[in-house]
Amino acid sequence: MTDHHDEPAPARPGISRRGLLGLAGAGVVGAGVGFSLDRFVVAPATASASAQENAAVYPFYGTHQSGIISPAQDRLHFASYDVAADLSRDDLIELLQDWSAAAALMTAGQPVGQYGAVNGPYDAPPDDTGEALGLPASGLTITFGFGPTLFTAADGTDRFGIAAQRPAALVDLPHFPADMLQDTLTGGDLCIQACSDDPQVAVHAIRNLSRIAFGRAAIRWSQLGFGRTSSTTTAQATPRNLFGFKDGTANIKAEETEVVDEQVWASADDGAAWMAGGSYLVARKIRMTIETWDRTSLREQEAIVGRTKGEGAPFSGGTEFTPPDFAATGRGGEPLIATDAHVRLSHPDQNAGAQLLRRGYNFVDGNDELGRLNAGLFFIAFQRDPRTQFIPIQLNLAKNDAMNEYIRHVGSGIFAVPPGASEGGYVGETLFG
Amino acid sequence: MTDHHDEPAPARPGISRRGLLGLAGAGVVGAGVGFSLDRFVVAPATASASAQENAAVYPFYGTHQSGIISPAQDRLHFASYDVAADLSRDDLIELLQDWSAAAALMTAGQPVGQYGAVNGPYDAPPDDTGEALGLPASGLTITFGFGPTLFTAADGTDRFGIAAQRPAALVDLPHFPADMLQDTLTGGDLCIQACSDDPQVAVHAIRNLSRIAFGRAAIRWSQLGFGRTSSTTTAQATPRNLFGFKDGTANIKAEETEVVDEQVWASADDGAAWMAGGSYLVARKIRMTIETWDRTSLREQEAIVGRTKGEGAPFSGGTEFTPPDFAATGRGGEPLIATDAHVRLSHPDQNAGAQLLRRGYNFVDGNDELGRLNAGLFFIAFQRDPRTQFIPIQLNLAKNDAMNEYIRHVGSGIFAVPPGASEGGYVGETLFG
Repeated sequence: MTDHHDEPAPARPGISRRGLLGLAGAGVVGAGVGFSLDRFVVAPATASASAQENAAVYPFYGTHQSGIISPAQDRLHFASYDVAADLSRDDLIELLQDWSAAAALMTAGQPVGQYGAVNGPYDAPPDDTGEALGLPASGLTITFGFGPTLFTAADGTDRFGIAAQRPAALVDLPHFPADMLQDTLTGGDLCIQACSDDPQVAVHAIRNLSRIAFGRAAIRWSQLGFGRTSSTTTAQATPRNLFGFKDGTANIKAEETEVVDEQVWASADDGAAWMAGGSYLVARKIRMTIETWDRTSLREQEAIVGRTKGEGAPFSGGTEFTPPDFAATGRGGEPLIATDAHVRLSHPDQNAGAQLLRRGYNFVDGNDELGRLNAGLFFIAFQRDPRTQFIPIQLNLAKNDAMNEYIRHVGSGIFAVPPGASEGGYVGETLFG
Repeated sequence: MTDHHDEPAPARPGISRRGLLGLAGAGVVGAGVGFSLDRFVVAPATASASAQENAAVYPFYGTHQSGIISPAQDRLHFASYDVAADLSRDDLIELLQDWSAAAALMTAGQPVGQYGAVNGPYDAPPDDTGEALGLPASGLTITFGFGPTLFTAADGTDRFGIAAQRPAALVDLPHFPADMLQDTLTGGDLCIQACSDDPQVAVHAIRNLSRIAFGRAAIRWSQLGFGRTSSTTTAQATPRNLFGFKDGTANIKAEETEVVDEQVWASADDGAAWMAGGSYLVARKIRMTIETWDRTSLREQEAIVGRTKGEGAPFSGGTEFTPPDFAATGRGGEPLIATDAHVRLSHPDQNAGAQLLRRGYNFVDGNDELGRLNAGLFFIAFQRDPRTQFIPIQLNLAKNDAMNEYIRHVGSGIFAVPPGASEGGYVGETLFG
């Protein structure tokens, strides 16, 4: 493909993903034969039926990163990255700066740069990959996290001079009973959670951030999620997971500001001052053996969950949002909510008051060689301290939960999610700045 | 989990996915301790932000199957199936009847059965897997197809007594230059295309149809698509593929009824009378090497496509919907649209007037071991006769398209898509009836 390289480079006006009309009169003149200015103008097309409603815009800069207590978006693209072997501290800082700048643009509905260089060489690759041109912000949030190996490499070295600042809460997760973790789905030096109501916008974000990282960090593992399994605001209806049950009924909601402060946000008093306003993300790829589940009686399904399938009401009575009464008993003094029911074992009352802000997604990754869907839940939870929240809760579940017969934990990650960046700053500035 | 089997079986009223309120007064009394009726009632929840707008309902029964000229929905779950080795003709007919009945329910926004048996045993598995309870139809279409091996098995046998009725148009696709097809992504006796504006609804459809097929047919390969790459009506904006370009600008639109009749619907005169009103589906899983593409200059990207990236206008001038002028030349008499440009080689003018109704989807299936996104286009096209449409067009592209440097065809399927079922009938009734 060299037959067009004799064309002179036309000037390329800036193009917004959100549709800057009227550029044709901006005085930029295309120099090539057959080029007209209107071809640089991207109309605010709505490539998906839902795009018109996807007008939500969440700020990138602020006290906290978005994508934690933001209303849970419908779709997810999550990626875990390993940094290059020869990356220096300055390189890492520059990567975080580049990522933050790009994230600020994309979450505002802008491309990460021009799709063609501004007044620049037409012979350069476009800055932005283009598949989200014309789409609105679609509620995009981009949330960055730092894995334990960023602080202490697998070989024990302190590559970036930050080992002493590793938060005590950023522990290596223990082995939980029945864990079947695959190395290729586990760990990572860095992570990015991209959530949006339009999957094209979430994919565009991970793709462009991966491209920006080229030579500095590469994807270790990644996951698309097609449907949220949690609500994070009281205005959202409770969605269903692939067991067919409502999920996240008792999730922490953004409106519960005291609970959020107590259970989600790290504080300067917690030990690592640079993490104040941050949080800790635990991700677990949980494969569900849905074909087996689907052959289980409704009685057993409901007993395992401890809630009804239709309404999602606890077995102790009431409706979805009625608090479960774990002391309630029925015939023969048997507890109405079984001692091994998921709702009981995961409840704060059974876990010293510990709660999680869940933000998980349903996934289907094709099928296995027997024709079974490779499906499940990509669990994501935010919390103030995994040592007192995710870990004890999961130990409790992994030992006792009746649901374990139908699930397998195959992937895992833990990440410190720094506070939000100051205006024009970058995520990680409180650690490196 | 046997500790609850001593509960008596409560009656289970019928639950609609579309939200049947008021059942609590229907006189059905739960017999178990701790059960109250309101827990059987599923409110019309909207589990996704877009669900409220996903009210479109397309009929399952009719002259043609839905999912062909229906407005292209945003999301896809496609599955290819192999039938069981011992399946009889009667078994196959029964499977098609069961599938059609379930598809008619799901496309109307109903579950495939009760999530608990109606007034039946609580100890039976639910008929419906439940994850779409409370969601509207969301524009769901379910489209069934018959592969060549359904008519003539790989070993040459006529398992179902239909070899003589195999349409001449249902050829085995030839090997195209540079094809890198994987057996595990290719072929199949049957296929189901489930499209919806809500991926949870599309996944629910494939999951439940696969479950219904248990012991009779199993998934051979499957594909989720997160974003449509074609419009099939003039009211839809043109979406973008993962090369960042608008795709399907010149696609056949449902409003072009003469073109649809000529290019999409099989006719009784075509040879196989039972296919009248049907069509032929060709699926190709096309992996895009997006990282390489993203390092290519905008000049080269646009020259390869033959259209501008922003507007999607042909290089011969105008705007997106201006017909390309392949005769137009620029400096030195060079054609403005290169001889190896994709828009030229795929255009009807270069293919004896042959067109395709495209209905493809963007996909990302995680990443490879080098951290590159496993991304591309799941191409789906409907046509009246692949011998004069897909095959010559693809031969032309496979030999000459400048885009070939950036794509690899890794999966493939061809299926006869029968006409729609008569009310209460089944897809395939014109073949087996």
